[in-house]
Amino acid sequence: MPKRTAPGPRDERGVLCARILAAARTEFAEHGVAGTTIRAVARSADVDPALVYHYFGSKDGLLDAATDPPQRWLDMVAASWATPRADLGRQLVSTMLSSWADEEIAPTLRAVIMTAAHDARTRAKLGLIVERSLIGASTLATDEADRLRRSGLVASQLIGFALVRFVWKIEPIASMPTDEVVAAVAPNLQRYIDDDLG
Amino acid sequence: MPKRTAPGPRDERGVLCARILAAARTEFAEHGVAGTTIRAVARSADVDPALVYHYFGSKDGLLDAATDPPQRWLDMVAASWATPRADLGRQLVSTMLSSWADEEIAPTLRAVIMTAAHDARTRAKLGLIVERSLIGASTLATDEADRLRRSGLVASQLIGFALVRFVWKIEPIASMPTDEVVAAVAPNLQRYIDDDLG
Repeated sequence: MPKRTAPGPRDERGVLCARILAAARTEFAEHGVAGTTIRAVARSADVDPALVYHYFGSKDGLLDAATDPPQRWLDMVAASWATPRADLGRQLVSTMLSSWADEEIAPTLRAVIMTAAHDARTRAKLGLIVERSLIGASTLATDEADRLRRSGLVASQLIGFALVRFVWKIEPIASMPTDEVVAAVAPNLQRYIDDDLG
Repeated sequence: MPKRTAPGPRDERGVLCARILAAARTEFAEHGVAGTTIRAVARSADVDPALVYHYFGSKDGLLDAATDPPQRWLDMVAASWATPRADLGRQLVSTMLSSWADEEIAPTLRAVIMTAAHDARTRAKLGLIVERSLIGASTLATDEADRLRRSGLVASQLIGFALVRFVWKIEPIASMPTDEVVAAVAPNLQRYIDDDLG
């Protein structure tokens, strides 16, 4: 039997974990933390509940894993900050658009956003994402309080736009061509990054 | 017995309805539509489930009532559009801030936003709110497609900011003084309302 059709236990584990996490993201986003059971996640992932406990320990462990942003996404966001500052607004919009078009990244972002409203731990995680990832510490030559305020404002626009376009799919935002999105939103981000905010 | 301590059936109905709707907003926002039962709402509102059926007919009827924006809020938003156009950005930020500081309005907006992610009917309702309320039809002397695009962009910023500040309470946005919020956000809204978006 050729190797690629007979994955070892390690590959199988990866496949099953990914299936469980995908089911967990949907369950947490749609039913909240209190309304989600390991049993329901296992049923939706078509695995035994014991396997979910074996891999993730508890519902808290599963929630934590399901809402951890993929390293690949953190790397994408960090790479955006290598963009020349005058072009940062545009680059951030592009990164947001490709993140939400990504089959692995989008469900995690959606789960974090939906769960943060009623789970303090996920809210803290979202706070860290906003603080650490959206405006890199060394990028803005201003004080820390100013950096955090600008980062929060940038996040408020990026997250709000992503909700309207990708989660709620409200027209005409949902089907606006990419270049129009960049032209419309990038200058507003650039103002939050650069300008005197009064 | 003085009248005010002995409310008639009509007053009692109002009080009970408000209590049931408040409980329903929390339940729908935290557990989703599928995860919410009339029984759980009744328990949380401390009333008999039969009363919830009597007042709202079904879970769909309850969801509909719980996510209907208060007329008072629609009036507030409509009144904002009487503001001279050059000051609209500022006025919209102020209206957003007072809406989310309002004990009756804020839970409804929160319920709509949280429920829209997994309920198509609430999503349609949110779409109508964005379309009809956020940019009044007669305000912008441009074509309808342009009005809807600008309205969606304004909504994306207002909703994203409200989530960061009021729902997730991410600092320093959560405790930014009101005048700083207006100074930071209003010019970006004004650009969506007025400017050539490229």
